[in-house]
Amino acid sequence: MKNSLLSRFAPKETKFFPMLKQLSKTVASASELLTESLKHSTSEERLDYYRKIKDVEREGDQITNRIFDELGKTFITPFDREDIHDLAFSIDDVTDGINSAAKRIAIYNPREIGDSGKELASLIQQGASLVCKAMDELETFTKNPASLSECCVKLHDLENRADDIYELFITQLFSNEKDCIELIKIKEIMQELEKATDAAEHVGKILKSLIVKYA
Amino acid sequence: MKNSLLSRFAPKETKFFPMLKQLSKTVASASELLTESLKHSTSEERLDYYRKIKDVEREGDQITNRIFDELGKTFITPFDREDIHDLAFSIDDVTDGINSAAKRIAIYNPREIGDSGKELASLIQQGASLVCKAMDELETFTKNPASLSECCVKLHDLENRADDIYELFITQLFSNEKDCIELIKIKEIMQELEKATDAAEHVGKILKSLIVKYA
Amino acid sequence: MKNSLLSRFAPKETKFFPMLKQLSKTVASASELLTESLKHSTSEERLDYYRKIKDVEREGDQITNRIFDELGKTFITPFDREDIHDLAFSIDDVTDGINSAAKRIAIYNPREIGDSGKELASLIQQGASLVCKAMDELETFTKNPASLSECCVKLHDLENRADDIYELFITQLFSNEKDCIELIKIKEIMQELEKATDAAEHVGKILKSLIVKYA
Repeated sequence: MKNSLLSRFAPKETKFFPMLKQLSKTVASASELLTESLKHSTSEERLDYYRKIKDVEREGDQITNRIFDELGKTFITPFDREDIHDLAFSIDDVTDGINSAAKRIAIYNPREIGDSGKELASLIQQGASLVCKAMDELETFTKNPASLSECCVKLHDLENRADDIYELFITQLFSNEKDCIELIKIKEIMQELEKATDAAEHVGKILKSLIVKYA
Repeated sequence: MKNSLLSRFAPKETKFFPMLKQLSKTVASASELLTESLKHSTSEERLDYYRKIKDVEREGDQITNRIFDELGKTFITPFDREDIHDLAFSIDDVTDGINSAAKRIAIYNPREIGDSGKELASLIQQGASLVCKAMDELETFTKNPASLSECCVKLHDLENRADDIYELFITQLFSNEKDCIELIKIKEIMQELEKATDAAEHVGKILKSLIVKYA
Repeated sequence: MKNSLLSRFAPKETKFFPMLKQLSKTVASASELLTESLKHSTSEERLDYYRKIKDVEREGDQITNRIFDELGKTFITPFDREDIHDLAFSIDDVTDGINSAAKRIAIYNPREIGDSGKELASLIQQGASLVCKAMDELETFTKNPASLSECCVKLHDLENRADDIYELFITQLFSNEKDCIELIKIKEIMQELEKATDAAEHVGKILKSLIVKYA
């Protein structure tokens, strides 16, 4: 099976690699804006950061759609068509998660986001860097999968750490917060941040399946 | 690639077109019932409309399952098997979204649904009409994709307008509503309405990918 | 089509059957722990049960990933590759749903879970048994699909009963509960329990599509 698959690596189809790299850069941009946004807490600043993140999210959508269009038109792709589809979709999903969190911060306008929220944003940013690194490895991992494999392990670890931070925060929130509306706001924002780390881990899972199939 | 795909348009497989049209009609019925339901606000009337919408939703499920069963048994389909699957699934998802909103209106029983909710319901109904129109175009779009393409653009625009209405409403809700339980009710209902417009836009995205592949 | 598909049943590929059985056993374990957990209501006990369920959930993930890895490497599988993928994914999703409910019980720490919650947990456990039974039928259903078919019908019925319990409970909750934070807790926990029965029904839907395709 390996040979028949490797034979599908036609040079002219390498256009998917730069598009996937470009897509991973939008995740990095969105995550940097998110981290930056948490240093501000007026409703105007929050709305402003949300708009910037939404622009990046739309750019990510456009790149993803371009990848899907190319997949529809291209007969031979470096991997199975579906693998590139799932990979692009999962990377774009991280940006969507960041956008969902930023949107809720802007329209719910909660009290200042505390340390746990900032830690989750930092984990998302680290996840974004790992996704970028993984896209750099994609062209060569069939010969040397160790580095891509390491990215997957780290994405998994990040998500576990995010889980712990989230669960501890929510436990404390429900035992201490008496303002119901404030609780609703921050609970849902933290949920969205945690989901963005899930999305980054999911990229790692798809990459791991590529290693199993092609390396 | 175009030729090999076009050659898959076997006349005997056109049974998928009437089924998809029939499915789009269930979306239209559900969206009309939803719009109608918002003119009433007793718990009995709401429950009554929810039951009617749930019946339509089940009908949609049955048609979708019939499409899936036929796909499992049919060797040659007008498009790739997976494309018809995704299309049917995405259309049915709009009805599911309408059903979710109607269900919450019935079981949460909030205060009267205001203008923003009615505007979202109107956008959903417009989206449903576009989905019906798109299904009429499906048999001929490979020769003349302009009209189907226009449906996709309009579905995308609808979703953007729904986003704006939703975000403005939620921003105001969180700064004005002091009744926490009422806030929970209306927030989630508006979320479900907005998600139904997302689902309609998603039909448009799948149609756009069909245009790229086959037209 | 039937013959060409049946010819794909190569004896050496039967490794998927024991893995799917093993996966269904994790659903059963998780659902038993969930039922058991509802007899206890201190935060320590809840956290303890959540940890146990999380361990089972991780075990389920590992088995699912092993199935996916094997699918990536195996050329001939008893069914279409995608069917096994969807089946394994959907079974694991039931455990994920149970885990989500248990997690919320642990970190929200609501008042004692009442009869409706216990009834939902019982339906989940019955659903898990049906999934186990279905996996026992999987090796032979192409010759005798009646028993597998019956599992699908029962999974569908369970979900309908769960729906009714859930909707009645939420209607009463919103008209009676005045403690907003308690309402948030129990509402979301009941939602997660109901979603786990949806997930079990979804296994039934996938099995039904296998019957249509292969029996």
